[in-house]
Amino acid sequence: MLFTVDPNCGKSLYTQIYDGIRKSILCGELRVGEKLPSKRRLAERLAVSVITVGNAYAQLTAEGYLTAVERRGHFVADVIPSFPRESAAAARKPEPEPAEKEYTVDFQSRNLSPEQFPFTVWARTMRSVLLMQDTRLLRPLEYNGVFELRSAIAGYLLRERGIHVSPGQITVGAGTEYLQHLLIQLLGRERVYGVEDPGYPQTGMIYESNGAGCRRIPLRGGGVSVDELIRQGVDVAHVTPSHHFPTGTVMPVSQRQALLRWAEEKDGRYIVEDDYDSEFRFVGRPIPTVFGTDSGGRVIYMNTFSKTIAPSIRISYMVLPEHLAEQFKHCLGFYSCTVSSFEQYTLAEFISRGHYERHLSRMKKLYRQKRDTVISAINGSALCGRGRILEEDAGLHFLVRLSTEVSDAELRRRAEDKGIRLSFLTDFLHRYSPESEHNLVISYSGINTEKLPQAFNEIAEMI
Amino acid sequence: MLFTVDPNCGKSLYTQIYDGIRKSILCGELRVGEKLPSKRRLAERLAVSVITVGNAYAQLTAEGYLTAVERRGHFVADVIPSFPRESAAAARKPEPEPAEKEYTVDFQSRNLSPEQFPFTVWARTMRSVLLMQDTRLLRPLEYNGVFELRSAIAGYLLRERGIHVSPGQITVGAGTEYLQHLLIQLLGRERVYGVEDPGYPQTGMIYESNGAGCRRIPLRGGGVSVDELIRQGVDVAHVTPSHHFPTGTVMPVSQRQALLRWAEEKDGRYIVEDDYDSEFRFVGRPIPTVFGTDSGGRVIYMNTFSKTIAPSIRISYMVLPEHLAEQFKHCLGFYSCTVSSFEQYTLAEFISRGHYERHLSRMKKLYRQKRDTVISAINGSALCGRGRILEEDAGLHFLVRLSTEVSDAELRRRAEDKGIRLSFLTDFLHRYSPESEHNLVISYSGINTEKLPQAFNEIAEMI
Repeated sequence: MLFTVDPNCGKSLYTQIYDGIRKSILCGELRVGEKLPSKRRLAERLAVSVITVGNAYAQLTAEGYLTAVERRGHFVADVIPSFPRESAAAARKPEPEPAEKEYTVDFQSRNLSPEQFPFTVWARTMRSVLLMQDTRLLRPLEYNGVFELRSAIAGYLLRERGIHVSPGQITVGAGTEYLQHLLIQLLGRERVYGVEDPGYPQTGMIYESNGAGCRRIPLRGGGVSVDELIRQGVDVAHVTPSHHFPTGTVMPVSQRQALLRWAEEKDGRYIVEDDYDSEFRFVGRPIPTVFGTDSGGRVIYMNTFSKTIAPSIRISYMVLPEHLAEQFKHCLGFYSCTVSSFEQYTLAEFISRGHYERHLSRMKKLYRQKRDTVISAINGSALCGRGRILEEDAGLHFLVRLSTEVSDAELRRRAEDKGIRLSFLTDFLHRYSPESEHNLVISYSGINTEKLPQAFNEIAEMI
Repeated sequence: MLFTVDPNCGKSLYTQIYDGIRKSILCGELRVGEKLPSKRRLAERLAVSVITVGNAYAQLTAEGYLTAVERRGHFVADVIPSFPRESAAAARKPEPEPAEKEYTVDFQSRNLSPEQFPFTVWARTMRSVLLMQDTRLLRPLEYNGVFELRSAIAGYLLRERGIHVSPGQITVGAGTEYLQHLLIQLLGRERVYGVEDPGYPQTGMIYESNGAGCRRIPLRGGGVSVDELIRQGVDVAHVTPSHHFPTGTVMPVSQRQALLRWAEEKDGRYIVEDDYDSEFRFVGRPIPTVFGTDSGGRVIYMNTFSKTIAPSIRISYMVLPEHLAEQFKHCLGFYSCTVSSFEQYTLAEFISRGHYERHLSRMKKLYRQKRDTVISAINGSALCGRGRILEEDAGLHFLVRLSTEVSDAELRRRAEDKGIRLSFLTDFLHRYSPESEHNLVISYSGINTEKLPQAFNEIAEMI
């Protein structure tokens, strides 16, 4: 072997020997089957300790470059000579990724400002959970989440949504998207899933990306059309009855009844009720759930804390009818829950101590004020009389129907030039229809209200 | 309408009116199309304010029980009479779920004790992250995780695993299982996935549960057999080269080369390198990754913090070759990252400030001691001479080959009776083979060492 070692070169003697032999093998200088010098002899030749050579031989044997034969020594293993890429060589500092464009007014923004998150209470709760140093915090997670959180959610659902479920029916997961992954595995990808059109585009994309059949069901009178569900052969209808996204309509009770009847008519039909943002109803009482009126075990209820606490909190849950909860445990119980136990226990405490419901009522007030500010800004601007406000009673968005001939695409371009990002109903349509044009979707939870009056005047000028 | 209201019954007047009208509609007492009394008239009759009646009418209209016609009043909508289930009636306290059986000695346990988790540093880091109250913490998450964490992981991989990757190649997700979901969507479920047999059973179950073809590939000489990959038509080989689970073997360099060559031979072939627990190598240096020697963009690297920090921390990551990272962004960029931003920023700080590497070296020492204690307990027990310890140089488990005729199933039963939970190599085999019997898998990270000497004596008696 041709290599030497240098005690002053900055690398350890061990590394130099390991690298020297490895390179000799990879460049073909040492042949397959060739015997290496004994540890003692190599140690003498390189003027290092026998232990150092022994360690290098052991490592090369563990990695498969050498074979050790008892009482006979070390031999070159059957390795194909090659020149390995030395990746550490290219050690450059990672460049920051390109930032997203900043807008003066962004009607798509879901960014929150710090006063919209209960930092102090959350930090205190998290700290008290961590400092318990309970071994429960470190245990591998059950498939459906920690019992304390599921109990707290069951209590909340009873108090605020009037539905009675057992913690065993609840599954906690890192976001509604992930729960949808589980649902597809539970119900099967041979079933046909129906999603609302217009609707939240990700819902359909997730079904398709997971290899399940997905049909877009048009809305009729505030909810999906049951006739269309039947015509398109849908088995599972994924809907937002309390507050449709993005139109904001509430599914009327007659349609809920028709939907439940449709589900009960044939085995294997289900309704997925996505109850996102039902907490923020500003007028009257919360809309009752479909889940609560279902007596046949046909409704799967879903909701998320991403909308009510912060989009960066990834905790959602679904409530399964008893028979599906059993099946879920049996077939998919091998998964670990995807939410860290620290956050699960923190949220459980946050709910149990009443912080969550206090936070909701504070946010409801704040969002109502914010909505009123946005509406005043519209009414006080040149847009007044040229834009009709629709479905503003609930949730974190509403529509403005514009009296204009300018197309959505053109209007978007003009607004972009002024630093305004618009959102249209047509953005949420799978099948474009010209009669849906000219409806702005105003998401206001993350909007900068100061610049609004000017923005609305500018929009009025563009149309 | 037959209902009356009672100011002293405990329910608000509003609720009593709402419930009264709703029940009258649902039981068919009020017919479809029937006109309701004006707000003023009903208010007079019930001796309540007009506003209260107005609120109840508005809520019933929002839910679709009534239709409001301007200047004419409210009419009963087309609702099918039915008797809704009053779910709140069944308000019983949730019963705690049945606890898992407790064992005196549990060789399957992955539970940690509090001294195995850096509670103080983690709590301090989490608190400092929360108290920044930075708006970045509240933003909707990118599909691949926050830049700061991905940069910190890239730095760690360069320092500790000698591989150079850009943060853009890294995707953070809530557990390796979830990342596998994404991977199947990225590579497609029409591809054939090969998993190690024996191996971690969940890996294959996840491919199957997501509708992808999955083949079990037997091990030959420390790694999957490339001949079998070809014979079984595998496109993607999912392997654990640094430390095979559960045998603990290291894939020798010749097999790594053969595997890489196999992947390069045909378009669309990939290697998924699961590098779990490679951090805990007690003898010599860490085993180099296959990813680091791949120059053709054929290797997807995966690792998790669940093994090195705590199983209840759900943060894993994968590193994609550049061309797959591009494709991922394009096709699956619509997903939100599944790890809460608080934990992502906390972990980023934890790594960047050197806490993670200090924690690893502390745990390596602790686990080495624990392993030595377990081995001493075996050697000091009646099992000495009847059990051969294998592959104990790394990771959090090793094998003990037993000299016995007693079957694994029988031995498990006998141990259960003594409160000992055993784990066998045959538990991790998809296709049972008799020659794999009599190998105990000793997972010691969560084991109670006090009771070990007695447990090993008892096992010796059973065999």
